[in-house]
Amino acid sequence: MAINPPVLNAPLAVPGFRVGTASCGVKSPALKGKRQDLALIVGDVPCHAAGVFTKNRFRAACVRHGEATLSTQAENVRAIVANSGNANAGLGEMETVWARNLIEAGAEAAGVAADQVLSASTGVIGTPFPIDRIRASVHEATDSLSADHWEQAAHAIRTTDTFAKWSSAVVSIDGQSYTLTGIAKGSGMIHPNMATMLAFVATDAPISADVLAPMLRRVADRSFNCISVDGDTSTNDTMYLLSSGIGLGHAPLSETAVFEQALTELCIELAQLIVRDGEGVTKFVTIEVSGAATEAEARTVGRAVAVSPLVKTAFAGSDANWGRILSAVGNSGVAIDTNRITLRADDVLMFENGNIHPEYSDEQGMAVFRQPEFSISLDLGMGSESAVVWTGDLTHDYITINAEYRT
Amino acid sequence: MAINPPVLNAPLAVPGFRVGTASCGVKSPALKGKRQDLALIVGDVPCHAAGVFTKNRFRAACVRHGEATLSTQAENVRAIVANSGNANAGLGEMETVWARNLIEAGAEAAGVAADQVLSASTGVIGTPFPIDRIRASVHEATDSLSADHWEQAAHAIRTTDTFAKWSSAVVSIDGQSYTLTGIAKGSGMIHPNMATMLAFVATDAPISADVLAPMLRRVADRSFNCISVDGDTSTNDTMYLLSSGIGLGHAPLSETAVFEQALTELCIELAQLIVRDGEGVTKFVTIEVSGAATEAEARTVGRAVAVSPLVKTAFAGSDANWGRILSAVGNSGVAIDTNRITLRADDVLMFENGNIHPEYSDEQGMAVFRQPEFSISLDLGMGSESAVVWTGDLTHDYITINAEYRT
Repeated sequence: MAINPPVLNAPLAVPGFRVGTASCGVKSPALKGKRQDLALIVGDVPCHAAGVFTKNRFRAACVRHGEATLSTQAENVRAIVANSGNANAGLGEMETVWARNLIEAGAEAAGVAADQVLSASTGVIGTPFPIDRIRASVHEATDSLSADHWEQAAHAIRTTDTFAKWSSAVVSIDGQSYTLTGIAKGSGMIHPNMATMLAFVATDAPISADVLAPMLRRVADRSFNCISVDGDTSTNDTMYLLSSGIGLGHAPLSETAVFEQALTELCIELAQLIVRDGEGVTKFVTIEVSGAATEAEARTVGRAVAVSPLVKTAFAGSDANWGRILSAVGNSGVAIDTNRITLRADDVLMFENGNIHPEYSDEQGMAVFRQPEFSISLDLGMGSESAVVWTGDLTHDYITINAEYRT
Repeated sequence: MAINPPVLNAPLAVPGFRVGTASCGVKSPALKGKRQDLALIVGDVPCHAAGVFTKNRFRAACVRHGEATLSTQAENVRAIVANSGNANAGLGEMETVWARNLIEAGAEAAGVAADQVLSASTGVIGTPFPIDRIRASVHEATDSLSADHWEQAAHAIRTTDTFAKWSSAVVSIDGQSYTLTGIAKGSGMIHPNMATMLAFVATDAPISADVLAPMLRRVADRSFNCISVDGDTSTNDTMYLLSSGIGLGHAPLSETAVFEQALTELCIELAQLIVRDGEGVTKFVTIEVSGAATEAEARTVGRAVAVSPLVKTAFAGSDANWGRILSAVGNSGVAIDTNRITLRADDVLMFENGNIHPEYSDEQGMAVFRQPEFSISLDLGMGSESAVVWTGDLTHDYITINAEYRT
C-alpha cells in the first residue's frame, strides 16, 4: 500500500541518451519474458559522471567497480547497466568476477568499452549471480534502445516497489533549455531485506565531472540521505548522475546554481516517492527542523525523530505522543537546550519553553496525526540552520513483510 | 508475554537497609489501595552511593536532583524514594518543584534530611504530578519498613512490566560475607512510551563513593547499557548503588575486583530480565562479538545488530537471514574488514572469509532461529576484545502495544 502515490507525467527524453531494457529471468528462469529486469542507459557521447555510494562497510562489487571507474573515467562514461532480481552481494570472490561480467555484457550491448560502463545490481543477496542468463538476453536491451524508454527502465530496476518511480525537469540557463530525467527504485525508508536504493539521473546540461561530484554529494544529502532513516543502508545503494552536454558540444556552464536547485528538487521528488512506497507505510510525515546551529545538526535531529520506533508507532496509531518526539530529539546526540524547543504538528503548537503549551489539547494533536500526511516542526532555538526529513510510520504490515516472508 | 522468565529466589536482606512501600494512587486515585506504587529504601546509616543516569538531553527533574545530590553528598545518602505511575517529566518549571516535594516527602517518611535522599519517578509523562496524593499516603512506606520487603519494592516500581525483577548475591571477601540485592524495572529493550529503566542495588560491602562511581559506570556499560538497544533512552533512566558497609563500621575494601564481578553478574541478570519482559518479545537473543580492536567497538557492533529492525524482524520470523546481520555490522560505523568476519548462529557456521560457508544450509540456520533462545556470534578478526549484547525480536505485539494503546 502506497501513500498518495502521485500520477507521474511521462519522463522526458534527454538529448544524448537512449535507454533499453531486457527480460533475462535474473531472479528465476521462469520470469524470462514475463518482466523486464535489466536496464541499459547509453550515452551517445562520452558523458561526465558522478556517483554517490552506500556507506555500508559491506559494499557489493558493483559499488566498488563503479567507484574505481569514476576515479579514472569520470569524463568518459558511456553507459549504465543495471539489473534487478539479484544483488550480486555476499558472494565472496565470484562476486567481483560476476560484477565484471555484467559490465562486459553491458559494454558489448552498448557498443562501448568496458571501462566506460557503470553498473548496479539489486535483489536477493547470497544467491549465485545468473550471468549466463544475462548474457543470453542482454541483446534485447540493445534492440530496444530508444530516447523514450525511461519509463520502461524505471520498471526494470524495481524489486518490491509497488510502482515505478521517475521524474523529469527542464531548466533554462543563459537562454538554453536543458533536461533532467531521473529514475529510482527503493522499497521504503526502512530498507527491506537490504533492498537497494538506486537512482540514475541523466542530463544534457554541460557540467564537468569535477563540478558534478561535489554537487551530487550535496544533493544526495538533501534528498536521498533524508529518507534513509533507519541506518540500515544497503550494501548496493548507488546514485549516478550522467551529463552528455559537454560531449554534445556545449560549453560548460559557468554558473551551476540553477541546475543544482533543479537537480535537488528532482531528487527530493524521487526520494519522496520511495517513502510513499515504503513497506507497510500508512502515513507520510515531513519532519522540519529549524533553529539549528548547523544544517548537519538539524538533519541529525530530524533523522533521530524519523528512526525512533516509538515515534513511528505513534504515527501508525495516530497518537499525538509529543513526549516520544521530544525524547527522540533528546537522544539525537545534538547538544540541544530543552527549554528552547518549540514543537508543532502542522500548525498546532504542542510544546514551548520546556513545557506543554497551555492551550494545547490532545484532541488538536490527534486531529493532525489522523491525517495520511502531516508535518512535525521542531524549532531548536539555537541558530538559523534547518533541514527536512521525510519518513513513514511503523506498522503491522512492515512486520508481516519482513518477518513472515523472505524475499 | 515474557520469554522464559526464571522463577526468582526470594531477595536477601542487606545489613543496614530497610524497605517499605505505599499505595498512593499515583496514576489514578482509583488505584489507591489496589496496588503499591511508591518504594522507600532507607539506610540505617549514612551510605556511600553512586548513580548512572540517562544520556537523553531531556532529563527529568529527579535525574537532575539525583546528580546534584551525589555531587556533594555521595558519602552521606540515607534513602531512595521512587514512584511509579507518573514520570514527572515534560512539565516545565513545576517538574522541579514536584521532584523536590517528592524528595521532601521521602525524607520525612524516612526520618532523614532532604539532601540525603535520592529519588526516581516512572510512568506517564506530561501529566501533572499528584504530589498531594503521595503526601497523603507516604506514611504507609514508613509503617511497612522492613529488611525483608525488597520484593514488595520491586513490585511497587513496575509500570508495564509483566513481572517484578530482583536479584541477590553473596560474596566472600577476606573471610567476610557481604550481600548485594538489586531491584529493577523496565518494559523491554525498546523502551515503550519512554518507559523508564530503573535499578537500585544495595550492599553492605564497605566501598567508598569515590570507588563506587567509576565502578558503577563500568558495570552499567556491561549490563544495562548492553540492552538499551534502540537508543530510545528514557528521560528518567536511573541506576543507584548504595553501600552501607562503611557506615556499619567495616574498613573499606582494599581490593574490590571480586565485588565488581559479583555486581556485574547481578546487573546482567537484572538486565536480562528486562529483555525477557520486553514488549512483544518472543525470542531472547545473545549477540556475542569477539575479535574486536576494543571492547567499545565490539559493543558498537553488537548494538548495531541488536537495533536493526530488519534483524529483529528476521528473529521474529525465525528467518536465518545472515545478510541482514552482516549489513547491520557494515552499518555500525566500526572499520571492519568484511573478508575477516566469521558469523555463527549457536554452533552453526554461516559466513567466513567474505562468503557464505560452503557447508552451510538454510535448514541449519532456521533450526537455530526457530528456538526461543539462541546466540549470534560474530568474530571480527581484528583483535582480541569482545562484548555481549542481549536483545529480543520485533513483533506484531510490539506494534500493537505501542501504536494502538497509549499507556
